[in-house]
Amino acid sequence: MRYEEYTIEGRNAVIEAFRAGKTVDKLFILEGCKDGPVQTIVREAKKHDTIINFVKKERLDQLSGEGKHQGVIAFLAAYEYAELDDIFKLAEEKGEAPFVFLLDEIEDPHNLGAIIRTANQAGAHGVIIPKRRASGLTSTVVKASAGAINYVPVVKVTNLVNTIEELKERGMWFVCAAMDGEVMYKQNLTGSIGLVIGNEGNGVSRLVREKCDFLTRIPMYGDIDSLNASVACGVLAYEIVRQRKFI
Amino acid sequence: MRYEEYTIEGRNAVIEAFRAGKTVDKLFILEGCKDGPVQTIVREAKKHDTIINFVKKERLDQLSGEGKHQGVIAFLAAYEYAELDDIFKLAEEKGEAPFVFLLDEIEDPHNLGAIIRTANQAGAHGVIIPKRRASGLTSTVVKASAGAINYVPVVKVTNLVNTIEELKERGMWFVCAAMDGEVMYKQNLTGSIGLVIGNEGNGVSRLVREKCDFLTRIPMYGDIDSLNASVACGVLAYEIVRQRKFI
Repeated sequence: MRYEEYTIEGRNAVIEAFRAGKTVDKLFILEGCKDGPVQTIVREAKKHDTIINFVKKERLDQLSGEGKHQGVIAFLAAYEYAELDDIFKLAEEKGEAPFVFLLDEIEDPHNLGAIIRTANQAGAHGVIIPKRRASGLTSTVVKASAGAINYVPVVKVTNLVNTIEELKERGMWFVCAAMDGEVMYKQNLTGSIGLVIGNEGNGVSRLVREKCDFLTRIPMYGDIDSLNASVACGVLAYEIVRQRKFI
Repeated sequence: MRYEEYTIEGRNAVIEAFRAGKTVDKLFILEGCKDGPVQTIVREAKKHDTIINFVKKERLDQLSGEGKHQGVIAFLAAYEYAELDDIFKLAEEKGEAPFVFLLDEIEDPHNLGAIIRTANQAGAHGVIIPKRRASGLTSTVVKASAGAINYVPVVKVTNLVNTIEELKERGMWFVCAAMDGEVMYKQNLTGSIGLVIGNEGNGVSRLVREKCDFLTRIPMYGDIDSLNASVACGVLAYEIVRQRKFI
């Protein structure tokens, strides 16, 4: 289940990675480059629904570890992603109502790692992340998860809004972390629940927020805007734990 | 109150920093180096109770930004430290019972920054850190605190055990995060309280732990050892908030 490589450079190496069935998190291709091998890579990427970034040569040079990118660099997942069904299976095995974290564009790999660690300890059954504008399972995430990545299914989805709809149909409901929500201690956070945590800077995006059943708020008494995203996730997750197990 | 420099290299620069009253967090001096200026630096460091590390030339070269260390590199606090009285003053101004975090050797500056941020938002009146084996207020900490460093007094003390004794005499009591404590939801965490959080790897040291009034535990259901230190601090701090304000 573990991958050893994290970055792959060069046309043949990237084509081979796709053909070997490896999960490419992100692909960087030189702007305007359209020869045969690059076309093949673009075709493979589309087949696997991989995000492609067309960038300038300077950016590729900057990203390159070996300096031999030939116009193509692929970032591979350090770990394999799970499927939504793995989350339900884990909940069922434990005889518990499903409890998942949905992360709307968490960008900092340290935060993602810490959140996966929290998911494991708070008894959540999985973490769902979007394909775009978010950290994937990089080696930094794996390290920051302190081993939790081996136990928590992490699912990468194309569209969080569609995923929320699908999970609602399977009996889950969703609570969204938001400054203008009701204070978490006064809400009922039990049952089959999805906790939605937003981006470090911008919070939860409008479309995702509108799909949630309600908004919840951590009371804050400070002079600044917010908590660190992984701390906020931990505080909310443990209020869910308290309500599930201690009242 | 803000300092612009974080590292100072060279004998004269370091001597001047001490004489200008700047707070030197850590001092690295070439092993075996004992000439006049270095003796002066050692004397100043002892006067200010600054930790001195005698290291090999390779280490200094590695630490050096400018490559002109002349056998001496000083790390300056990015911010001025506060005094214990500042914490009591802040609590009094707000008309609240004092609430502080004591961090026993938090090493990761991202964690320290996130914890200072949590302190501000949870309404804690200060953060206490030890001089030895812990992250000081570096530029990374300042950034990770997201501005909270401007509002939360951070006090650096020589000996945490002595500080706990002093604060106990001033009416505070201390709860220590520990795996073998009672579950936090079942404890009374109100009143004038100090929350003690341990090192990322080793938890709270024995002597500090023994000075605490009791041990508290976050319930954990996972397969790994612990939560991220800043997440654990946030979860415990907010249980204190809940008990102080919501029951």
